[in-house]
Amino acid sequence: MALRTDLTEMFGIEHPIVLAPMGGVAGGVLASAVSEAGGLGLIGSGAGERAWLDRECGLAAAGTERPWGIGLLIWAVDIDTVRSVIERGPRAIMLSFGDPAPYAAAIRDAGIRLLVQVTNTDEATRALDAGADVLIAQGSEAGGHCGHRATLPFVPTVVDLAGATPVLAAGGIADGRGLAAALTLGAAGALIGTRFEATHEALISVSEAKAIVEAHASDTERNRALDIARGSAWPAEYPARTLRNPFLDRWHGREDELAGDSVALQEYRDAAEREDLNYAPVWAGEAVDLITGLESAADLVGRIAHDAEKAIMDTAKRCASAPE
Amino acid sequence: MALRTDLTEMFGIEHPIVLAPMGGVAGGVLASAVSEAGGLGLIGSGAGERAWLDRECGLAAAGTERPWGIGLLIWAVDIDTVRSVIERGPRAIMLSFGDPAPYAAAIRDAGIRLLVQVTNTDEATRALDAGADVLIAQGSEAGGHCGHRATLPFVPTVVDLAGATPVLAAGGIADGRGLAAALTLGAAGALIGTRFEATHEALISVSEAKAIVEAHASDTERNRALDIARGSAWPAEYPARTLRNPFLDRWHGREDELAGDSVALQEYRDAAEREDLNYAPVWAGEAVDLITGLESAADLVGRIAHDAEKAIMDTAKRCASAPE
Repeated sequence: MALRTDLTEMFGIEHPIVLAPMGGVAGGVLASAVSEAGGLGLIGSGAGERAWLDRECGLAAAGTERPWGIGLLIWAVDIDTVRSVIERGPRAIMLSFGDPAPYAAAIRDAGIRLLVQVTNTDEATRALDAGADVLIAQGSEAGGHCGHRATLPFVPTVVDLAGATPVLAAGGIADGRGLAAALTLGAAGALIGTRFEATHEALISVSEAKAIVEAHASDTERNRALDIARGSAWPAEYPARTLRNPFLDRWHGREDELAGDSVALQEYRDAAEREDLNYAPVWAGEAVDLITGLESAADLVGRIAHDAEKAIMDTAKRCASAPE
Repeated sequence: MALRTDLTEMFGIEHPIVLAPMGGVAGGVLASAVSEAGGLGLIGSGAGERAWLDRECGLAAAGTERPWGIGLLIWAVDIDTVRSVIERGPRAIMLSFGDPAPYAAAIRDAGIRLLVQVTNTDEATRALDAGADVLIAQGSEAGGHCGHRATLPFVPTVVDLAGATPVLAAGGIADGRGLAAALTLGAAGALIGTRFEATHEALISVSEAKAIVEAHASDTERNRALDIARGSAWPAEYPARTLRNPFLDRWHGREDELAGDSVALQEYRDAAEREDLNYAPVWAGEAVDLITGLESAADLVGRIAHDAEKAIMDTAKRCASAPE
């Protein structure tokens, strides 16, 4: 089984499935496992911290000779960081949450494919102007940080804007049906995050994995409170979807107050230090409803690809014009 | 061209396209035009106001001999209203936003198909328990009132819950690609609202239609302020997505204050009376991004069906297992 799209052609890969570069969660072992299984694994380096990247890129290179890449947060990096990431040999660099223009030329001049994640049409236009090779249209049902548009109507809108530039769908996709839907919307593949958290290769604690497997979409919430509590510099326009927890419930709608409450902030830091999930973020999108167990990344990639093709062919059989 | 699904079989219709029963907007002319074009038209009667239904059901019956239906807001009706709606001869009654149990038996005993719109998994379970013939899984990118889940991950979640009961997708669908995506997600069709507002048959003013054609998803906002300003009894758990306007901008995040401000409420009522769109709601979902002009309901139904089949067959050609 295989689905051929502009993405699979561009990278010479088997399946139009991209591992979302979840900061600190998508390491070299997970990324290389996804690539080795026929997808495209992206390491989630966030701000490009060098010691972490040394280790994780080494693990990726050791795990596969197939293409893999690295994801960066635009607002958290500078050109020196981008240059040091380029030198690590990724075949793709994905930039998210900001204006990619200052870094686009360096990446493309190095012969590396530039993937840009966008959360609204203004960002999509800016990414196209910067010369992105691939756009990723991310909906607000995604886990972690995201914008304000839903995936289903946002993807075809970006596809219409992007012309010949391939678009991936991100947010709310955890199985073959979701990938199939992305393709019928005009996307060249899907970027999948939360579903890959629940794999043996993800850099995630047992209790976090258990929480994701047990959670439902109604247990998730978009918030800024955990960024504020963590003292993180995330721009306010990108809230994060996490599992709800007692700390969040307590500060819901009172983010400004939290920012000035040094006792509460210290309480948060102490709890986060001991990885207490009553406080610390468990990044999770609405697709948690579709996650019922842990599996290996290889099994997961194969199953999503297989089920996507099945969903497409089953639907095609409903068409009057389908071959009998 | 035709797409065969459990929905088209159930009603003996040509296309798995259902007109959302938009209150006051989806009248008998629009509903019958959708049915006559091969979809299923639902009249949006809201609370079941009798004089309005007399006129609109008469127009529907005059416009088509094919199946059509009526949508009701559960929280706004009682059993007498439901009985009076049953007598008008609809082939389907769609109940939304509340517990359908008190009305399910009366509808089904009359030989009328019961469609229940759900916004979360608890509502889905309740609808199945009540014996719904069709579930409609509605995402929060929809126009008008809605819940809190996004369509793309919510639809397959409801499909898994519903077993043999057909599920329709609602929210964020405005073209053939969206319908195709709904089908690959496992749905038996799509319920479409905002896109049908921009038809010649919708009960909508020229200025509202123009606003919808020109608007982008980023111009929409989920709010309770307009329900409060209108003095409407909508339950707080269902905010409404409308176009932003200066009145909304002014009261954003201050709904409780608005409820107690008699001067502002009077100002709203005076403006709404003269249909001033700087105040009054224009119901619109995120799929407005995909709406670029007015057309007839018949052309629209035909085009969505045609483009859905094309999207499915084009995607099927990407599968390695597809016939060459």
